[in-house]
Amino acid sequence: MKQDWKPGTMIYPLPTVMVSCGTTPEEYNITTVNYVGTLCGNPPLCYISLKPESHSYDIIKRNMEFVINLTSKDLAKWADWCGIRSGKHNNKFEATKLTPGKSNVINTPIIEESPLSLECRVKEIVELGSHHMFIAEVVNVQADNRFFDVTTGQFEMDKANLIAFAHGNYYELTNHVGKFGWSVEKKRPNTSKTGKKRSPKK
Amino acid sequence: MKQDWKPGTMIYPLPTVMVSCGTTPEEYNITTVNYVGTLCGNPPLCYISLKPESHSYDIIKRNMEFVINLTSKDLAKWADWCGIRSGKHNNKFEATKLTPGKSNVINTPIIEESPLSLECRVKEIVELGSHHMFIAEVVNVQADNRFFDVTTGQFEMDKANLIAFAHGNYYELTNHVGKFGWSVEKKRPNTSKTGKKRSPKK
Repeated sequence: MKQDWKPGTMIYPLPTVMVSCGTTPEEYNITTVNYVGTLCGNPPLCYISLKPESHSYDIIKRNMEFVINLTSKDLAKWADWCGIRSGKHNNKFEATKLTPGKSNVINTPIIEESPLSLECRVKEIVELGSHHMFIAEVVNVQADNRFFDVTTGQFEMDKANLIAFAHGNYYELTNHVGKFGWSVEKKRPNTSKTGKKRSPKK
Repeated sequence: MKQDWKPGTMIYPLPTVMVSCGTTPEEYNITTVNYVGTLCGNPPLCYISLKPESHSYDIIKRNMEFVINLTSKDLAKWADWCGIRSGKHNNKFEATKLTPGKSNVINTPIIEESPLSLECRVKEIVELGSHHMFIAEVVNVQADNRFFDVTTGQFEMDKANLIAFAHGNYYELTNHVGKFGWSVEKKRPNTSKTGKKRSPKK
């Protein structure tokens, strides 16, 4: 049985990312958004949506660039804080003791403590209503060496311990459910050792 | 230490949703996307991005509506399958045994087994490159009664057991990290029973 709800944006889970902005230390700010996502693979385009009255809005509109910093569990409390407090009244890098690091293509700092940072250049601002969407191109990605597997050279997203947001709460991504494509994988012969977990007997 | 990566869209975790489309049973299809998110709170706007060569692209462009169905863990394997197989060669509702349910505002079916479905009407299609973005308004939300707490009337997102996608893998959202606003909560006096978990002694 279903019940109707007031139309609303109930897409979950969402990423929780810390967006850094500003090109001079006086201007630097951090805001946290869930209205963020990937729009296009090639060119690599993403977006963030902000309220025009937010402190970061003017900074990003002025510089037409920002950094998306992924949030690990140990950064979750500061991510929450940066989403609630305004940069009008707080120097957020100072208050959080997070470290502004050097971007390599744009002039906005990354957050050093983040496992992965995307340097973004704004292509277009679309005024939608309560929020305006900043469509941006990813012009560089900085990934923390701690999360690379030395043997495979792969970025180990598991180790980064990212958090997701759903309906007012932050969660860890812990239990692995499957990998992309697992539903169509051919079972190989003689692979009993990789075998499925069985349900306990009832 | 950081290392640069080829610019790419590495925003994680992402939602994994099953998008149903089509307004006649012959046309019905399901595709799975991670390029999905909320754009604006008021009006409630969201988006999905699709490759123009995908089977669902033409169907949605013709009808200018679709449904976003959230994915619980028990639907994960079908979500993966619907994202890999094409509707050109598969009747996906028949193959998955998922049930097309009635939308209340639009003519596209919801997926009955999904905990929460958003009926969406397309406002604009933006051609970005490899993917085109469908900007859509949420015109109705259908939520499964199973996930409402009978005493509070709240939708219990925890019970819906949603999955998230990160870097090629699906995960459950299990460990609760905190609720929105917890970083600025005042500690109330005499609340030792709600107390924080202490770290084990070392």
